[in-house]
Amino acid sequence: MPSNLRDRLQTETLITAWSGIPDLLTVELLAAQPYDAVTLDMQHGGHDEASVLRSLPMVLGRNRHALVRIPVGRFDMASRALDFGAEAVIAPMINSVADAQVFAAAMKYPPLGERSWGATFAMSRRGYAGDALSWLRNGNQDTLAIAMIETRPALEALDGILAVPGIDGVLVGPSDFSIAWSNGTLVDPALEDAMGAFVDIAARAKAANKLAATYVVDPVLCGRFESMGYSLIAC
Amino acid sequence: MPSNLRDRLQTETLITAWSGIPDLLTVELLAAQPYDAVTLDMQHGGHDEASVLRSLPMVLGRNRHALVRIPVGRFDMASRALDFGAEAVIAPMINSVADAQVFAAAMKYPPLGERSWGATFAMSRRGYAGDALSWLRNGNQDTLAIAMIETRPALEALDGILAVPGIDGVLVGPSDFSIAWSNGTLVDPALEDAMGAFVDIAARAKAANKLAATYVVDPVLCGRFESMGYSLIAC
Amino acid sequence: MPSNLRDRLQTETLITAWSGIPDLLTVELLAAQPYDAVTLDMQHGGHDEASVLRSLPMVLGRNRHALVRIPVGRFDMASRALDFGAEAVIAPMINSVADAQVFAAAMKYPPLGERSWGATFAMSRRGYAGDALSWLRNGNQDTLAIAMIETRPALEALDGILAVPGIDGVLVGPSDFSIAWSNGTLVDPALEDAMGAFVDIAARAKAANKLAATYVVDPVLCGRFESMGYSLIAC
Amino acid sequence: MPSNLRDRLQTETLITAWSGIPDLLTVELLAAQPYDAVTLDMQHGGHDEASVLRSLPMVLGRNRHALVRIPVGRFDMASRALDFGAEAVIAPMINSVADAQVFAAAMKYPPLGERSWGATFAMSRRGYAGDALSWLRNGNQDTLAIAMIETRPALEALDGILAVPGIDGVLVGPSDFSIAWSNGTLVDPALEDAMGAFVDIAARAKAANKLAATYVVDPVLCGRFESMGYSLIAC
Amino acid sequence: MPSNLRDRLQTETLITAWSGIPDLLTVELLAAQPYDAVTLDMQHGGHDEASVLRSLPMVLGRNRHALVRIPVGRFDMASRALDFGAEAVIAPMINSVADAQVFAAAMKYPPLGERSWGATFAMSRRGYAGDALSWLRNGNQDTLAIAMIETRPALEALDGILAVPGIDGVLVGPSDFSIAWSNGTLVDPALEDAMGAFVDIAARAKAANKLAATYVVDPVLCGRFESMGYSLIAC
Amino acid sequence: MPSNLRDRLQTETLITAWSGIPDLLTVELLAAQPYDAVTLDMQHGGHDEASVLRSLPMVLGRNRHALVRIPVGRFDMASRALDFGAEAVIAPMINSVADAQVFAAAMKYPPLGERSWGATFAMSRRGYAGDALSWLRNGNQDTLAIAMIETRPALEALDGILAVPGIDGVLVGPSDFSIAWSNGTLVDPALEDAMGAFVDIAARAKAANKLAATYVVDPVLCGRFESMGYSLIAC
Ligand SMILES: [Mg+2]
Ligand SMILES: [Mg+2]
Ligand SMILES: [Mg+2]
Ligand SMILES: [Mg+2]
Ligand SMILES: [Mg+2]
Ligand SMILES: [Mg+2]
Repeated sequence: MPSNLRDRLQTETLITAWSGIPDLLTVELLAAQPYDAVTLDMQHGGHDEASVLRSLPMVLGRNRHALVRIPVGRFDMASRALDFGAEAVIAPMINSVADAQVFAAAMKYPPLGERSWGATFAMSRRGYAGDALSWLRNGNQDTLAIAMIETRPALEALDGILAVPGIDGVLVGPSDFSIAWSNGTLVDPALEDAMGAFVDIAARAKAANKLAATYVVDPVLCGRFESMGYSLIAC
Repeated sequence: MPSNLRDRLQTETLITAWSGIPDLLTVELLAAQPYDAVTLDMQHGGHDEASVLRSLPMVLGRNRHALVRIPVGRFDMASRALDFGAEAVIAPMINSVADAQVFAAAMKYPPLGERSWGATFAMSRRGYAGDALSWLRNGNQDTLAIAMIETRPALEALDGILAVPGIDGVLVGPSDFSIAWSNGTLVDPALEDAMGAFVDIAARAKAANKLAATYVVDPVLCGRFESMGYSLIAC
Repeated sequence: MPSNLRDRLQTETLITAWSGIPDLLTVELLAAQPYDAVTLDMQHGGHDEASVLRSLPMVLGRNRHALVRIPVGRFDMASRALDFGAEAVIAPMINSVADAQVFAAAMKYPPLGERSWGATFAMSRRGYAGDALSWLRNGNQDTLAIAMIETRPALEALDGILAVPGIDGVLVGPSDFSIAWSNGTLVDPALEDAMGAFVDIAARAKAANKLAATYVVDPVLCGRFESMGYSLIAC
Repeated sequence: MPSNLRDRLQTETLITAWSGIPDLLTVELLAAQPYDAVTLDMQHGGHDEASVLRSLPMVLGRNRHALVRIPVGRFDMASRALDFGAEAVIAPMINSVADAQVFAAAMKYPPLGERSWGATFAMSRRGYAGDALSWLRNGNQDTLAIAMIETRPALEALDGILAVPGIDGVLVGPSDFSIAWSNGTLVDPALEDAMGAFVDIAARAKAANKLAATYVVDPVLCGRFESMGYSLIAC
Repeated sequence: MPSNLRDRLQTETLITAWSGIPDLLTVELLAAQPYDAVTLDMQHGGHDEASVLRSLPMVLGRNRHALVRIPVGRFDMASRALDFGAEAVIAPMINSVADAQVFAAAMKYPPLGERSWGATFAMSRRGYAGDALSWLRNGNQDTLAIAMIETRPALEALDGILAVPGIDGVLVGPSDFSIAWSNGTLVDPALEDAMGAFVDIAARAKAANKLAATYVVDPVLCGRFESMGYSLIAC
Repeated sequence: MPSNLRDRLQTETLITAWSGIPDLLTVELLAAQPYDAVTLDMQHGGHDEASVLRSLPMVLGRNRHALVRIPVGRFDMASRALDFGAEAVIAPMINSVADAQVFAAAMKYPPLGERSWGATFAMSRRGYAGDALSWLRNGNQDTLAIAMIETRPALEALDGILAVPGIDGVLVGPSDFSIAWSNGTLVDPALEDAMGAFVDIAARAKAANKLAATYVVDPVLCGRFESMGYSLIAC
């Protein structure tokens, strides 16, 4: 496995592939490409618990960072994705501080959160087999809780969300954001009107010393988002 | 695919097969029979995310309408079923207006609801590949949110449930209803005592200009339910 | 199938294997060993709905009791595990009376709870095919709702949790308990400091006439826990 | 498991369900019906190695006899089906004594045949765990090699096929037989013209002290075939 | 389904996608692209019986022609692929007239070949449900047996192979051909030295009134192969 | 991946785990143990094409050597196992020089054998992506064809088998050997009577400059077999 995702994001901009087909051979194909990471999508992609459990070693075995996006509100799955070996979990539709708190609780061991012990798969897959204490001590630092900001209420609650202990960063969902911004009249992940907000979100994340990430449908925009301060970009 | 399910239900009574075996080949067998629709059951049947994702094209490929029943309270799955290509989602145990509101929110795009964008599978399977704007505009109309009425509290809240924007209809669950009606002393989906309530439910749905559906264990009763005003019947 | 799990636990201490690999052939191997029961773990193990549905007959077919541990808060799955044929469901992180009430509601038919009718798989697998009324009458008695006690708040709420109608017992989670007990500084399922609490939990369960169960990582401790009054032990 | 299939066929006519859907839940449904046996079809049905391995315990767990039909010429699979726990293997298109010899070699341990040792799954599933010597001694007697007779060359070679050591019986394939009988002009598993041949086959099998079996598409014909001397009938 | 593959190939050049990932969702993606056909590869691709059985309806449901390439010598699978609904089977390494005869026997019903009756899946998938006689009469015409020519012995036997009744065409395997042509010193599917042989093969196929097909790694070459007379091209 | 299996076997004795459960998570568990290699067993174990394709990266991703044992006579699968990324294939019941020649032909590229080109999975998994020529040149050297010697005819033909170009070694099957040695009267993989033959086989393999391997049921015997000259041992 490459060095810690959190550490690398301090100094690098990383690109993640996005996996929607819940099949480990397809994930293997993605992981063989020169991406920094692969994100397994359980919200709009077809991934499920079985495919995530079996796909993660394909990503880790190719020395790629492994992320999982959970369905809306499935915080039980946030814990499980970590138990299976994911380094980061992306939670969609974090629209309030309360949403963020529940998400963080599922992601972090006590006393920071309420994550339950039992990461047998992850400990083996991430090099901690037989060393429970190190896993416990490093666990909260080694895993990233990334909250999706993609509605007007989320934007309004942004500073509060960023301030929740255990939330490590935010990921802007540009398609949903454009629907929200246009009151449901259009969908455009590159909506020019929204770019100001995107600049603002990255700046506020930086101010809070947290990660800013986004999803870019048109690769041409990657550079623009990077210059805004987004350091994890899905292409 | 046949013409829109919502449109057909204006003028026709449709019969849906009920699929409990989570295996696409078994679903294919059902879809080859002369039913109008196939319902994939994730509550009491064995369907799961993987089987629904893989079974839906078997239904659509045979020109049948595709419905999914989700487990109790799994509104994340309501959105996902639509993302995978289902035309309608049936939610069990909608016992209050609040339940109905959460269900509707998961089913409808803003501003009507809070459904998140990303129906890649569905857009391809239902003929919208490459036409995001049409999908956004037609989405809420093309998909049906059907709330199950199967307890006394649900019956009491019925008019409120029917009035929730985004709820497109109700489906009476006759077995659970009979347990409720008898205070847990018997289970009988054809319970004569309950028939008056069934008549009432259909009438109030009609008054609210919404769909009335039911599940009929004994095919002999199909005609009787149809004459009550139920236009979508599971046999 | 062996005689009723609830009945046997009145007079015997039973040992359950713990299945973390979501594969029915692996479950078959466990069920062929001389355990009394097999528990399929959906919280920290890799089991999912599909694997549980397919693994349960491997357990029942070898005359073993079948238990399922659900993920945190997934009470929809508690009902489904019963519908698939499990005799008992273990719910992790039951930290309050409210948690216990929601769990019990999902586990028990009305009027005790709100479990929905439709256990087609279970009725066939557990010998009730064609006899709905007996299933309804025996259902709440034939299935065990086991709440995990593994945090300080849970310990404080213990008597209240034990008093919730429909809760049939408690299972101590020793690893999480040790993390809670040590304020996150260590993980040790055999933590000596916690043994007093374990004695207390078993005693209070017995006083409430409910089952006390636990998970023992080191088999050497089995006898000690049995002497405390734990009658269902995972080894 | 019921008493030995070979023994029962001495005195009873047994009916086998025919499983074409390679899904263990569908097999479980069949095994729950009042058939004596279930045959998993790998020739024209969809069964494959994985589905056979996982479906056999569903059959055995319901106390049904388990048979497997292999694809044409796949004698490697004949051995594997036995290794997985099948009691009998049906081989299609045994058209010559040489075909029958290769089939028998794959089915029987030395010195009668050339079957290779390693039936770990079967020994566990059929009650021989830990008793290798009994398995070796009983193996050839406990398993049935059934050769399909369904072409003119097969009919001509019938007495020779029946005389091959290790061949335990024949199964008439009425559809293919009707195509052969009509020189490819029709397919009719109840072809009246062929009935004389069917009587003859059963008689010659009986004379050779071997099993006669057949596949009956129209259940009305079951009695007629039974009276001809067919004691294993697929319906 | 589009009109008959054999008929279309009389007047059109068709392009087939090549599927190596044995996952029906990936096949669905390919079938949604504007190819004329999808070929499921069981020789060097990862397809197996289960994936072919489940992937074929994804191809047919999108109105694409469905082809299967079997592993070397697996003629049992040739019959099964047809039984599952494939329109054409490609057999690799047909190096002699004897190879071609065995392949044709597996592909064609008597009296032309020895294919066994039982295409339940295919009859349903290809519109013949309930019409066995039409299926029998049209079967040999509706399905194409395509022999791969990819070694020196195959080239030498080409006219004999083309003359085998039931062989409907040949497909040149350019990579293996280049290895053969260079005596194992290189692999180059566009090997200029081999082009004369490719012209010759197409011409001899045309003279025998049979199909010429090929696999083109570099799309730039498609036109060149088409002008040689190849009418089915894998890109 | 560790350095070449062939090279290591020149100087080391290697131990391989034996995988009979066709599930990649179980294979992952084995590969996490301190074995040198994992062998996926398709003869008596439950592995099939799908499980081998998906399990191989679990082995390679843990830096273990990956071997596959094919079913009797399934030389099509020998090629496929290599195409999927196996480093060695073990073929059971190689009883004659002719058997060995067919096996070698499937394993080696021309002109040594007749293996067909198309190892897309393997080239990616074993570090040859994009370098076809190196793969072609190294292929025959990088992969081991291991013939099982487990019958009297095999023993008689041993020198001939060892002399077949492309056969890289032999593996003694001690259970089948004991059945053969005892004329079917017993099965004992540690049969003392057979030890002289085992010594002889290793010596003759060494004289032919080929690998000697065996399968040891009782770990106590490992040292004894190693001292006979067996350098690859399954435990
Ligand atoms: Mg979004
Ligand atoms: Mg209900
Ligand atoms: Mg716990
Ligand atoms: Mg036949
Ligand atoms: Mg080739
Ligand atoms: Mg052997």
